[in-house]
Amino acid sequence: MKTLRRLLFMIVFSVAALCAYAQGTGETSTAVNAYVSDAQPKYIFMFIGDGMSSPQINSAQIIGGCNESGKIELDKLTFTRFPVVGIQYTQDATSFCPDSASTATSLSSGFKTHSGVIGMGIDKTTKGVTIAEKLKAEKDFKIGIVSTVTLNHATPAAYYAHVANRNDYYDIGLQLVESGFDYFGGGSINKAEDGGESIYSLLEKAGYLVTSDRDEILSLGAESGKVYAQSPVLQDDGAMKYAIDAKDDELKLKDFVRKGIDVLYNEKGFFFMIESGKIDWAGHANDAASNIYDTLALDEAVEVALEFAFDHPEETLIIVTGDHETGGMTIGYAATGYNTAYDILSAQKLSFVAFDEKLIDAMDSDFTFEDLMAMVSSDFGLGRNLEEACSEALILNEYELAKLQKAFDDAVQGNMDGYEESLLYGGYNPISVTLTHIINNKAGIGWTSYAHTGLPVPVYAYGAGAELFSGSYENIEVAKKLMALTGV
Amino acid sequence: MKTLRRLLFMIVFSVAALCAYAQGTGETSTAVNAYVSDAQPKYIFMFIGDGMSSPQINSAQIIGGCNESGKIELDKLTFTRFPVVGIQYTQDATSFCPDSASTATSLSSGFKTHSGVIGMGIDKTTKGVTIAEKLKAEKDFKIGIVSTVTLNHATPAAYYAHVANRNDYYDIGLQLVESGFDYFGGGSINKAEDGGESIYSLLEKAGYLVTSDRDEILSLGAESGKVYAQSPVLQDDGAMKYAIDAKDDELKLKDFVRKGIDVLYNEKGFFFMIESGKIDWAGHANDAASNIYDTLALDEAVEVALEFAFDHPEETLIIVTGDHETGGMTIGYAATGYNTAYDILSAQKLSFVAFDEKLIDAMDSDFTFEDLMAMVSSDFGLGRNLEEACSEALILNEYELAKLQKAFDDAVQGNMDGYEESLLYGGYNPISVTLTHIINNKAGIGWTSYAHTGLPVPVYAYGAGAELFSGSYENIEVAKKLMALTGV
Repeated sequence: MKTLRRLLFMIVFSVAALCAYAQGTGETSTAVNAYVSDAQPKYIFMFIGDGMSSPQINSAQIIGGCNESGKIELDKLTFTRFPVVGIQYTQDATSFCPDSASTATSLSSGFKTHSGVIGMGIDKTTKGVTIAEKLKAEKDFKIGIVSTVTLNHATPAAYYAHVANRNDYYDIGLQLVESGFDYFGGGSINKAEDGGESIYSLLEKAGYLVTSDRDEILSLGAESGKVYAQSPVLQDDGAMKYAIDAKDDELKLKDFVRKGIDVLYNEKGFFFMIESGKIDWAGHANDAASNIYDTLALDEAVEVALEFAFDHPEETLIIVTGDHETGGMTIGYAATGYNTAYDILSAQKLSFVAFDEKLIDAMDSDFTFEDLMAMVSSDFGLGRNLEEACSEALILNEYELAKLQKAFDDAVQGNMDGYEESLLYGGYNPISVTLTHIINNKAGIGWTSYAHTGLPVPVYAYGAGAELFSGSYENIEVAKKLMALTGV
Repeated sequence: MKTLRRLLFMIVFSVAALCAYAQGTGETSTAVNAYVSDAQPKYIFMFIGDGMSSPQINSAQIIGGCNESGKIELDKLTFTRFPVVGIQYTQDATSFCPDSASTATSLSSGFKTHSGVIGMGIDKTTKGVTIAEKLKAEKDFKIGIVSTVTLNHATPAAYYAHVANRNDYYDIGLQLVESGFDYFGGGSINKAEDGGESIYSLLEKAGYLVTSDRDEILSLGAESGKVYAQSPVLQDDGAMKYAIDAKDDELKLKDFVRKGIDVLYNEKGFFFMIESGKIDWAGHANDAASNIYDTLALDEAVEVALEFAFDHPEETLIIVTGDHETGGMTIGYAATGYNTAYDILSAQKLSFVAFDEKLIDAMDSDFTFEDLMAMVSSDFGLGRNLEEACSEALILNEYELAKLQKAFDDAVQGNMDGYEESLLYGGYNPISVTLTHIINNKAGIGWTSYAHTGLPVPVYAYGAGAELFSGSYENIEVAKKLMALTGV
């Protein structure tokens, strides 16, 4: 049967390739490694929602659909309305549940590699060349890299760095400076002083304007030269804040995209990679509200790119995709069956990280379960009765209360290492992960993992050459298609 | 921001529609309810994997990828190699986790309705007209309906019946007879005698050849007239056997497709809906092996359609999709992290249903935990040590053993109604669902629900008019696109 199947497909693909060529649509199968398109995108936006696949995307469409009218209708995102959709398979050379280093390398450079490796092959020695490096060297495009997490984290690094170990942050930082890319924006540099002279200082020596001043960032433009624009407000590990925690007047992902366009815009072209990295982090922690609000913030950033595309319709290509799914998030849960209640997520006032910080401050020797319940009521709207809980739907049942009591005891006693506790908490603060589990489950959201999963990831494409991104293919084809389109 | 977004999209979609029209690709957004294509498919295959979305499909690609060489590579299915991919949103008028009645109605008839309703609007009175009914009435197409479950179950019924309640099986059976469709194949008729004269007898009176004789089925052809070909071997609720349980010489889904083509083929055309219904049932029960093998069996049936398409390349359209996801299946689990081990699923020798039957036979008053462990060892390869277990990977740890002991106690005592037990067992036999959970989790597969979930579902299309199925859209667009393509 296998032999027949393969024979059939050789024929199918030959025909498909011929048809596509004849029709001039440029749409070919992945088995035929040659893409045909008349499009010549000059301004390319590559949005990556880290840990974002269909569960995250559709959750972000359900939360608005629920809240506004109670009517069962999706509140569509900007990018899910793009005319072209593809599906990419994410497994790397090591795993069907791959990591961000290898998957971002596949997206940026067109080959598979081991988990943990950035910009190098499976021998951990051979260096690849990324789409960004090629476009800079061969086409003199300006290059922008934005991330809500640190700029030498795996996904942004995969566009300019080549290291055998994603944890070599200082080395990646050095390569960031050497890249000569034109615009870096968003989070900070992780371990910037960890190997010698500060990466920030090296950036300034290399001629970069390094700023974390809000007003200076907002006045950036083409005349600013090379820029590292760092968010004035940082949160966990030097990343930008979760959208759920950010104040109205703080710079958002969309602001770093808008300023990036101002810095990068030129006649030759630009390639602009924008990562929303904390969709992944919230997925690891199984915090649906933080996950969804960061996905919505990504969509707002896509809107900014789309506005640019309207002004440059024949020359702009926008790709929105993820690198892998994180958390095994599901729209549905055993206890809620065919129902969901995403509107109750609005009772959660802060991310798990912000709650963790409050917990650390609160958990002195006198911290009692009653103290916790007061925080639970104010920050998650959950409680034992209608006095404590925001609504009927947020009242804790006996099972949930017992889980919370165990989490409190385990947190106080530092009991997190048992097999059962590893399943319950995944190494996170027992209290906060139990609270997000409880409110997520009540909303009808399930999680199965604290790691990445093997769910395929959709690719949404708009603009010049978008039709090439139709069909289903390996993640490495994203880079190959971009290279074919731009002729590098 | 909402207003801006909507304004922008009015512009985007106008441009997209114009471009699509100008290019003659026929690819338009769902907001522009007019599809343009030169294709005129005459032979249409509509495959529906009930409860099948990306987790099920990619699991079926991972299981072969693991088993054969240990290399991290997908063993691609036939239909995932189709050149065109779309994504459909499945929510119905009632729920973001919709049921099969409403979603199949959307796929067959182009409108949303309440969960549980077949072929009628949200008033539960107004009847729709299905693509199959239209093609028969307006184009004199022959119509075929195949399902691995009963032929008056929700999904097949949505192509010929109109009832306010999917459980009105006898009424649906009457409408099956009245449909005058040309070929029914696969499972039996549920409650065929529940309202009066047997549906089988009514079919014969209406001129149908009704047969469950293997040889007679295998000799069916164009000269057979109208046919109801029922699998000689049935399993739960009158459905065909799970693929994992079927013997080599028993008729498979692909056989009912092959014979359907023989019966339906004619110069005017045919519309052939084929449902693999037990992907869903195995999803409800959280039985990954049964789920995956039925998905592979669906793919083998698609191969048969593809062979036909090669002989009729300009006139054949094949669509493969699902109606919704079932079970909240994830490729990844908390305890296995970034690893999967799908190969160990081969230790499971039978479906949960077949195991349930053995359990019922075994569980007399003398049934002990040791008796159970013997069955567990032979049928699931699991055990407390290497004597009992097939391999190191299948040895039960303390946590798993405690779960199994609790499931045994709960099964013996009939303790299934508590909140915790509803989460653990979902109403299934505590022992078998615990066993599939254990072996699935060891393989790196998680589940979050015993119901349907709100994950979007991919659409794979091949052949004449396939390009219309690109992009992301509501499930109702599948029917609308088919109607536009065929001009009905």
